[in-house]
Amino acid sequence: MSSTYGKILKIATFGESHGLGIGVVIEGCPAGLDFDPDFIQSELSRRKPGQSRITTQRREADEFEVLSGVFEGKTTGTPIALLIRNEDQRSKDYSHIAAQYRPSHADYTYQAKYGIRDYRGGGRSSARETAARVAAGALAKLLLKKVGVSVQAYVSQVGTLKLEKSYQELDLAQTETNDVRCPDAAMAQRMFDYIDETRKRGDSVGGVVTCVAQGVPAGWGEPVFDKLHAELGKAMLSINAVKGFEYGSGFAGVEMYGSQHNDAFFTDENGKVRTSTNLSGGIQGGISNGEAIYFRTAFKPVATIMQDQDSVDQFGEKVTVQGKGRHDPCVVPRAVPIVEAMTALVLADFYLRQLANRI
Amino acid sequence: MSSTYGKILKIATFGESHGLGIGVVIEGCPAGLDFDPDFIQSELSRRKPGQSRITTQRREADEFEVLSGVFEGKTTGTPIALLIRNEDQRSKDYSHIAAQYRPSHADYTYQAKYGIRDYRGGGRSSARETAARVAAGALAKLLLKKVGVSVQAYVSQVGTLKLEKSYQELDLAQTETNDVRCPDAAMAQRMFDYIDETRKRGDSVGGVVTCVAQGVPAGWGEPVFDKLHAELGKAMLSINAVKGFEYGSGFAGVEMYGSQHNDAFFTDENGKVRTSTNLSGGIQGGISNGEAIYFRTAFKPVATIMQDQDSVDQFGEKVTVQGKGRHDPCVVPRAVPIVEAMTALVLADFYLRQLANRI
Amino acid sequence: MSSTYGKILKIATFGESHGLGIGVVIEGCPAGLDFDPDFIQSELSRRKPGQSRITTQRREADEFEVLSGVFEGKTTGTPIALLIRNEDQRSKDYSHIAAQYRPSHADYTYQAKYGIRDYRGGGRSSARETAARVAAGALAKLLLKKVGVSVQAYVSQVGTLKLEKSYQELDLAQTETNDVRCPDAAMAQRMFDYIDETRKRGDSVGGVVTCVAQGVPAGWGEPVFDKLHAELGKAMLSINAVKGFEYGSGFAGVEMYGSQHNDAFFTDENGKVRTSTNLSGGIQGGISNGEAIYFRTAFKPVATIMQDQDSVDQFGEKVTVQGKGRHDPCVVPRAVPIVEAMTALVLADFYLRQLANRI
Amino acid sequence: MSSTYGKILKIATFGESHGLGIGVVIEGCPAGLDFDPDFIQSELSRRKPGQSRITTQRREADEFEVLSGVFEGKTTGTPIALLIRNEDQRSKDYSHIAAQYRPSHADYTYQAKYGIRDYRGGGRSSARETAARVAAGALAKLLLKKVGVSVQAYVSQVGTLKLEKSYQELDLAQTETNDVRCPDAAMAQRMFDYIDETRKRGDSVGGVVTCVAQGVPAGWGEPVFDKLHAELGKAMLSINAVKGFEYGSGFAGVEMYGSQHNDAFFTDENGKVRTSTNLSGGIQGGISNGEAIYFRTAFKPVATIMQDQDSVDQFGEKVTVQGKGRHDPCVVPRAVPIVEAMTALVLADFYLRQLANRI
Repeated sequence: MSSTYGKILKIATFGESHGLGIGVVIEGCPAGLDFDPDFIQSELSRRKPGQSRITTQRREADEFEVLSGVFEGKTTGTPIALLIRNEDQRSKDYSHIAAQYRPSHADYTYQAKYGIRDYRGGGRSSARETAARVAAGALAKLLLKKVGVSVQAYVSQVGTLKLEKSYQELDLAQTETNDVRCPDAAMAQRMFDYIDETRKRGDSVGGVVTCVAQGVPAGWGEPVFDKLHAELGKAMLSINAVKGFEYGSGFAGVEMYGSQHNDAFFTDENGKVRTSTNLSGGIQGGISNGEAIYFRTAFKPVATIMQDQDSVDQFGEKVTVQGKGRHDPCVVPRAVPIVEAMTALVLADFYLRQLANRI
Repeated sequence: MSSTYGKILKIATFGESHGLGIGVVIEGCPAGLDFDPDFIQSELSRRKPGQSRITTQRREADEFEVLSGVFEGKTTGTPIALLIRNEDQRSKDYSHIAAQYRPSHADYTYQAKYGIRDYRGGGRSSARETAARVAAGALAKLLLKKVGVSVQAYVSQVGTLKLEKSYQELDLAQTETNDVRCPDAAMAQRMFDYIDETRKRGDSVGGVVTCVAQGVPAGWGEPVFDKLHAELGKAMLSINAVKGFEYGSGFAGVEMYGSQHNDAFFTDENGKVRTSTNLSGGIQGGISNGEAIYFRTAFKPVATIMQDQDSVDQFGEKVTVQGKGRHDPCVVPRAVPIVEAMTALVLADFYLRQLANRI
Repeated sequence: MSSTYGKILKIATFGESHGLGIGVVIEGCPAGLDFDPDFIQSELSRRKPGQSRITTQRREADEFEVLSGVFEGKTTGTPIALLIRNEDQRSKDYSHIAAQYRPSHADYTYQAKYGIRDYRGGGRSSARETAARVAAGALAKLLLKKVGVSVQAYVSQVGTLKLEKSYQELDLAQTETNDVRCPDAAMAQRMFDYIDETRKRGDSVGGVVTCVAQGVPAGWGEPVFDKLHAELGKAMLSINAVKGFEYGSGFAGVEMYGSQHNDAFFTDENGKVRTSTNLSGGIQGGISNGEAIYFRTAFKPVATIMQDQDSVDQFGEKVTVQGKGRHDPCVVPRAVPIVEAMTALVLADFYLRQLANRI
Repeated sequence: MSSTYGKILKIATFGESHGLGIGVVIEGCPAGLDFDPDFIQSELSRRKPGQSRITTQRREADEFEVLSGVFEGKTTGTPIALLIRNEDQRSKDYSHIAAQYRPSHADYTYQAKYGIRDYRGGGRSSARETAARVAAGALAKLLLKKVGVSVQAYVSQVGTLKLEKSYQELDLAQTETNDVRCPDAAMAQRMFDYIDETRKRGDSVGGVVTCVAQGVPAGWGEPVFDKLHAELGKAMLSINAVKGFEYGSGFAGVEMYGSQHNDAFFTDENGKVRTSTNLSGGIQGGISNGEAIYFRTAFKPVATIMQDQDSVDQFGEKVTVQGKGRHDPCVVPRAVPIVEAMTALVLADFYLRQLANRI
């Protein structure tokens, strides 16, 4: 198991879906940063369950406690431990699946790997763990804000409904105005209806979250292995239910010729080197080039559905997994703050790493 | 800069395109493994330039020297250093671009990050660095073979030409029978012609490499951050020119419902837990489930083209970057062994990591 | 700041002396280990303040809470988070030193490094942090016990009172029979009186803790940098107030000739390779050789004394630091479980690391 | 095996005593540093064998080759690979000990750990590996010089001959004026005679190297685990033949009272916070306080002696290990540049790490 992430700004998350709580220890945050608990709480609230009828009905306030690392409102350079107690544990809901392997969940693989698992709500494999990431990511956002970097994600696809506009054509300030977190109001409504209808059928559906980071100067990213997009990719793929990642032109770029795909350099009015197009997605050779960084992350339909499914149990016997409990019919609306959090953690770490670049 | 990869089986690569050579130090390889220099050389030869008229005409034998870590034909548990001397350096070819920023290359970002760069052939940012990865990956393959794991990649798309067959429908033994490394002979010929025509126009085109790992038992991968697919994704995205990664159902899975997407478990005739479909791509919750692992990696059209392009130089002045030198019109045929190498390194590392899973 | 330790069995500690609490996240503990809360509590009680009149009178029950990672009495392979709430915080005691730099404390250096510090009781630099290490170390002891390894430390010197007997001449089972934790009863009494007299004078005094690990098989330790004794040395030197470390013959070995110092090999009745002497301290070339591992750790007199001292404050002004508050007149009795804990963590990590040694 | 060291400035060493060569890959060196090959060569020459009749007579020029990372005389931020070819391999000298376990060498432990070993000259466990450290350390010295930090080591004890003067009482510029590397000429002569006499008897003897780092500002070191002295201790203990480490007052400090041991703060004429004594050794709470950092490292008598010794072979049979070959009768004269190199690497790494301390 590896529950740590980052090189200088490092996080170690812990906790299970139905244990006492979820938390994170953040190490390497520079001293002297204003610690804004309200902002962190607001980010947690964007991720918490029960926000609308298209998200799971589990009830969690997701309030956090600061155990260490903050003094008189500022970070002190010491580890910052944040704890979110679990409230609505309802362990009884899960007793019937103690020995069952739910299809496309991690029940079987955890059992195969460890020989034991906390089966309640998926235990450690539950997306509840991402609450800890969001709390840590909120702190990373505060650090990035200090250096002029913003991170904004939004839902760009639900099932077959795909927002064809690029991020430049959208008003990202509209993202939080609807439950789907799609900045295009008309599309947001269509997506909501799509998800709600899926929910009513007891089914689930996938989606895509697009993320844009602006204000990153040229020079972040550590090739040849820790390329900026490689680390972003890993961070995104580490989120529950993610199946794919692409940045800049992505998979569509495959079909282009180099003469179409190359981004021409020019010098702007301020003497800054820019590119006239941005198929590079703001990253060249694994290093930011000063343009906007953008990427897309694909989420599968969540595995929990309200339908009976064939499966086996720990003893290899055939069982029927029954569809009950609570679930998200589509994970992407709540995934938006998680994508932002992981992006912020990656970028903040690269910000700190590049401080030692030059003599 | 981060030129190290892996947790237990770790590699540290070094070298520039036109320096003395390229190399790798491999640490953490278990002692007692038969070191097969012929196999390593054969893998290097699959990656080396000048294989056919659709690859770059740079001439490199890519022969390697074992500097340490092998004794009487076996690994000793100590660091294994491999060195590949550069032969065809032709530094003069590059003098004209010393101060130029070639579009969609890493010239500008390296200069912005470090304030200095070895401009000859892209220096450290050249894909020549991947020779070191292929050498190390060959050793990882030898280790994996001991535990019954194979890794096979092939070209599944070139530009708009897409192989619609799944890996199960293909005979992967055919991959090496053609210059494109596509296991479908008819498609391989079409792809060859497509690339060759692109080359004649002085242009380049993108492609996709699909990779399949078979024989991985259930239990490899280290969630919550070092999920098997997250690490594979990072490894792929760290390869030059890669723009996207997806595993199992990938981006297409977004459009499915959970009821279609879930892989039903069953117990096979040997009492082994299996899934009847494999949209999970052999990985659930970030841990291998015993099914074949497969994923797709998208490569952009290479940035070097034989056409004049507008750009700027280090002083911000407008320049025309002239298309000369040698280049790969399409990188995917030579990327196949690189994808395999990085996959093997990731899997071998997870193999070693999971040895400490249980009491 | 670096509050993480270990490669496979990793700990991340957090917390300040007068914050909400102290804790640790333990990652990499194998699944299936019996989690014995009583044993962990008993180890914490060996370290806790207020045990006798020669230890600080701060009152802390040092009871811990398991936040994650344990299910039905066993470890699950997921991160184990343990939290010890601070009770007797008495922050007011420390307000008078908010701006003062106490001599030979970390007040000045934390301020110089971070520009901010939690001055209450030394904040993060307080030895209170070691409670988290003892809790984690207790778990490491449970793991080591499974593989037949024991770790026992004891006080071998207080000020000028030096126990001249080697560990073989002592009955280590006697260590816990007295407040000093010296296994020689007569010497223990002399040490107690020495410390108590020092305490009455408002002064403090140094000491040495000797530690012995038995049952470690040949093969643990990872040269060339992570030599077994190098890692033990780092672990010991990371404990508050430690000034020196030596293993086997140590500094005294300097004065010997090679012909005296070399440990002759022989084969014992069971066919096991042994050494007839053990000046190597159970470690050769950085790897355990199957003999007992032993080493000595030097602790300085604690910096807190009940006497007035000249110093300066944050503004560079001369101040008199007044001796008040609570303190340990000699740290070594309470350091014994800390030394054992760090030793156990180092050894358990090396146990897990060596599992990947050979094919 | 762990042959990597450092967090930001990282080294990976490789090579065996009688393989093709020894080398190091240095990662994380900032770009733009003047690369001074003459200085690096001069440091290697301080360590190389055959310097006088009190060092081993093995002949090695120890000339190095720069494989990567340097362009037009400057570091580029990319990995710097340095290779030192072995010349005087004389493998035949060692064939008689292929199956023997030399007393207090690493033959047995390497065999026990890996099941295979390169027995020629100790293979990887040979102190020849430290040549790579000295080359890397020379680069670290160049970096430290840029920020005003110097590192100077010297021999302060050989066998029972102990230099009682503190570093302040010595003229460290005299260190290189004699073969022993003791800055006190009279003591140097006595030590030389002592070593030479020991050599004539075919024996060996231990010694102590003292090291002083000056110019380190307050704020380097990363508690709670990577305390400055903890990392220095690990680095020293990772050097072949080291048995102990102490800094500041060290083991002698144990016998002092706190009232004697505490270093009083004062503000000097420049407004800088200083301490009037320096028993802290320049480090408080694991962080440099701006005073000189000093420590002592104990080396055992080297295990190779020119005398017959009882031992066993790989089959457990009794053998007589014959004293032949070449050896250092006392390791400390050649250890001086190694101690400096490791110290420089540790300090340079902490210099780079602390750049991210504060917002």
